[in-house]
Amino acid sequence: MFSDTDHAAMQQALALAARGMFNTTPNPRVGCVLIKDGQVIGQGFTQPAGQDHAEIQAMKDALSRGLDPAGATAYVTLEPCSHFGRTPPCADALVRAGVARVVAAMEDPNPSVSGRGLQRLRDAGIDVRCGLLEKEARDLNIGFVSRMTRGLPWVRVKVAASMDGGTALHDGTSQWITGQAARDDGHAWRARACAILTGIGTVRDDNPALTVRAFATPRQPQRVLVDSRLEVPLDARILTPDSGEFARPVLVFCAVEDRQRQRALEARGAEVVVLPNPHGKVELRRMLEELGRRGINELHVEAGFKLNGSLVREHCADELLIYLAPKLLGDAQGMFNLPPLARLQDAEQFRWHEVRQIGDDLRLIARRNDA
Amino acid sequence: MFSDTDHAAMQQALALAARGMFNTTPNPRVGCVLIKDGQVIGQGFTQPAGQDHAEIQAMKDALSRGLDPAGATAYVTLEPCSHFGRTPPCADALVRAGVARVVAAMEDPNPSVSGRGLQRLRDAGIDVRCGLLEKEARDLNIGFVSRMTRGLPWVRVKVAASMDGGTALHDGTSQWITGQAARDDGHAWRARACAILTGIGTVRDDNPALTVRAFATPRQPQRVLVDSRLEVPLDARILTPDSGEFARPVLVFCAVEDRQRQRALEARGAEVVVLPNPHGKVELRRMLEELGRRGINELHVEAGFKLNGSLVREHCADELLIYLAPKLLGDAQGMFNLPPLARLQDAEQFRWHEVRQIGDDLRLIARRNDA
Repeated sequence: MFSDTDHAAMQQALALAARGMFNTTPNPRVGCVLIKDGQVIGQGFTQPAGQDHAEIQAMKDALSRGLDPAGATAYVTLEPCSHFGRTPPCADALVRAGVARVVAAMEDPNPSVSGRGLQRLRDAGIDVRCGLLEKEARDLNIGFVSRMTRGLPWVRVKVAASMDGGTALHDGTSQWITGQAARDDGHAWRARACAILTGIGTVRDDNPALTVRAFATPRQPQRVLVDSRLEVPLDARILTPDSGEFARPVLVFCAVEDRQRQRALEARGAEVVVLPNPHGKVELRRMLEELGRRGINELHVEAGFKLNGSLVREHCADELLIYLAPKLLGDAQGMFNLPPLARLQDAEQFRWHEVRQIGDDLRLIARRNDA
Repeated sequence: MFSDTDHAAMQQALALAARGMFNTTPNPRVGCVLIKDGQVIGQGFTQPAGQDHAEIQAMKDALSRGLDPAGATAYVTLEPCSHFGRTPPCADALVRAGVARVVAAMEDPNPSVSGRGLQRLRDAGIDVRCGLLEKEARDLNIGFVSRMTRGLPWVRVKVAASMDGGTALHDGTSQWITGQAARDDGHAWRARACAILTGIGTVRDDNPALTVRAFATPRQPQRVLVDSRLEVPLDARILTPDSGEFARPVLVFCAVEDRQRQRALEARGAEVVVLPNPHGKVELRRMLEELGRRGINELHVEAGFKLNGSLVREHCADELLIYLAPKLLGDAQGMFNLPPLARLQDAEQFRWHEVRQIGDDLRLIARRNDA
């Protein structure tokens, strides 16, 4: 069904899409390659929200070289949009340009528009194929797919641990268990996320800024704090405004109404959202829904034992990003605060997704079995 | 210094050596390839103790095909022996056969004979080179090298754990955390070891036979039990005599003199060794020395939290063989019973050696930094 040329062109489109890794929020990362008479005549990838989508970029690229997209094949990593959002529909633009064939890696994951863009192209007489390198394309936009299909961000929990699962000494000391290379790598994962989440325990123990530093990025992710009783000190580094172009207020989720604290935090540039559960904690699932509504695709969690445990217990952790240092901490704080099991078969099940050595440490990625 | 032909021939010799993985105890695994006029004329690998060494096998192989080793190059993964052990010296045999050149991967690790075999060859006018693929050769005989250089076996501690470091529920249940493929793989590691060690806690919780079953092997490893107070039940499966050709009594190390228990165990075919430390436990370092004296090259440990912790604390664990299941156990028994650290930098340091996926689980190998 797909030729070697098709595969190579889609690989190229995926590589282009990946160039939008750090700034398409809340849009998906999309790449487009135009091929005509066996030659690449145009390339494009999604620009920051409100600017050109990949298809438009690719056609502009072709025209800027004096080449006409008419009769070309367009390879796109995601079904072209068919609706007016912040930009006009790409499907219409492809039709107008006279493209002869469109190969898409996957349909739009948004169930309310899925297939419509491809249908519009077919209605215009264009030869349309879908499903080439679909797995890779879905993976690239795992957060966007999650938000479109579940209304929730893709939640990636980062943990740095010893071989025996220790993440901190009992006094909270955790700097540093892993090496410099692993910590730098962690910043790349922060950068690709739309938002970074932590808990009040981590603010107390480590006082992190939760900004991306060890990695050049065009935008700082939104910072989010779970702080049930609004205990965050006003001089905590997480409340320091970031200087990025896309700076947004720090979001603080809490479980109590406290007008005075709220006003003080708002004066620091934070936004406070009250979402209590019956136990006086933040209702995590509703917090994720709120983040989904706010366009958060990938949520990167760097929290401690307790919040990590709550996220797992409440089935809110989709992926674990574990940096495993080749050392033993023995009696120390663990990764996840989870109660003892009655039976082994009740264990939370994941599956291994990827393993890589980063400096002296290992980076293990596991995903929920049902994710 | 070494040609492509040299490399290819030594790789072949290493592959031959690996065929002795399960039955050369207490001898090293050695492979030999004879090349003459660019052709392989003979191949051999170490036979069970008391039978032919690799070099003799290779020369017999050549002669059996009507080919003369005179003028050939012999590739050996370990320096040919120069002393009369249970067999006559291989160096002399190579000289007598008229071999023109000998390439060895490494010198004999035994400091009292190291270099003598090569010297004997040089004295006879043979062109001798050493050090080709030495790292691979040392790795293949990691236990033999350890015993020759330190008088101690290479101690490999196998652990099956969840991602968060859980090895058993608090009631001791650990069957099964990892999947069938990982458990079968574990039997291959049992099989290559000269001895398998466990503790009384594991006998109580799991009552293992500690024999090799899921893997075809020519001999069962020696079984060793650490049982400070001689509490092992006489009907424990570990005391069941194995039916293998090289069957040896189960060794029980304890810290108390108890004639009656000792006699009962001896009647079951076990041998009891009393090696107390000042805390009423078995003196582990002296136990390893004793195992070294008995010709144990690789010691495979399958024990619980406590004995594992003691081995690490007393610097007796050289390698960790960790099967990591993609699940979370939460509040459970850990891998190693180690006291809390005062400072992160006091953590026991290892380095990652190898990672592989086995079925649904990961197999991680770490080695002591100084090993």
